[in-house]
Amino acid sequence: MDRLEKQVAFILEADKEKNIFRQTRLSNHGRHENDAEHAWHMAMMVYLLKEHANEEIDIAKAMMMCLIHDIVEIDAGDTYAYDADGLSSQQEREQKAAQRIFGLLPDNQKEEMIQLFNEFEEYKTPEARFARAMDNFQPMILNYSNDGGDWKEYDVSKSKIINRQSKTELGSKTLWKYSEDKINELVKNGNLKDE
Amino acid sequence: MDRLEKQVAFILEADKEKNIFRQTRLSNHGRHENDAEHAWHMAMMVYLLKEHANEEIDIAKAMMMCLIHDIVEIDAGDTYAYDADGLSSQQEREQKAAQRIFGLLPDNQKEEMIQLFNEFEEYKTPEARFARAMDNFQPMILNYSNDGGDWKEYDVSKSKIINRQSKTELGSKTLWKYSEDKINELVKNGNLKDE
Repeated sequence: MDRLEKQVAFILEADKEKNIFRQTRLSNHGRHENDAEHAWHMAMMVYLLKEHANEEIDIAKAMMMCLIHDIVEIDAGDTYAYDADGLSSQQEREQKAAQRIFGLLPDNQKEEMIQLFNEFEEYKTPEARFARAMDNFQPMILNYSNDGGDWKEYDVSKSKIINRQSKTELGSKTLWKYSEDKINELVKNGNLKDE
Repeated sequence: MDRLEKQVAFILEADKEKNIFRQTRLSNHGRHENDAEHAWHMAMMVYLLKEHANEEIDIAKAMMMCLIHDIVEIDAGDTYAYDADGLSSQQEREQKAAQRIFGLLPDNQKEEMIQLFNEFEEYKTPEARFARAMDNFQPMILNYSNDGGDWKEYDVSKSKIINRQSKTELGSKTLWKYSEDKINELVKNGNLKDE
């Protein structure tokens, strides 16, 4: 029961992720999305879009990577993908958070979760490359459905978006091709700034 | 690309689940939880608590069951677990919703998702029994952390809670033992009504 108490302590701590909000808005020009909702959507997408992965992947592992990839933000906060200052200190803040939060779990699970988190961050494995593709593709389709969404709201230019989104290709050539088409369409319709 | 367009249409439709609110409140006496957050929490719990399952399970399948089990509520609305009137019409409303919403997917995935949804509803497989245990265990630990939570707020008595929560045992004897202890503790502390 001591093991289960530790697992429950972690699960309750993770609950706080539901109050961490991202820049992305829900479809139909809705409110800002929180980290738990974003992770839920990504994990479902791993399962539904797995046929588009470049490499064979362990589905449960890739789903779990998605579910936990933002838990560090409970301590470290959300860093906007296009915020250069925030990005420079992000790694240090998140590594510290990973130690504390995953440290609530029994030791073997703490190590497994930190491993999954680091693999994801470093694009290390086929699962990480596909999970990271979901981390791009999920806000991409929301932004596309919202006529440019937060990219437009924060005046992010096409080249910056391409620079980040093109890493989708490491996990899925098909999803990257689809994303590129949608981004070009946003530029064509005047919803995204071309330089 | 036609297949991918259908998958994206479903993924965008699923986004609406983030606006369907449950009776359960977030930890620290927070706001009401929505369906997407609840499903995210459940899927993570499948992975972390799998050692407590009574039977061997396919983890990815059980996680996906959790992620999609409430999608029908986009059309059918949330039915509170202790609302007898709502429960009597729930099945018909939800089956109709499943046809429309999963029907956005390519045919083979539509069939797979309806199959997963029905297995879950009917406790049909080891994955369904464990996923349903998560559907009980997740609000149980939130309610326990909130001194009785919505059970107390809606004046639900111990026997009704036991009647529902005891089905956790079908998926995990260990988690049911833990739940029973916590429910008894709530009664002992005056946070839950004993008849």
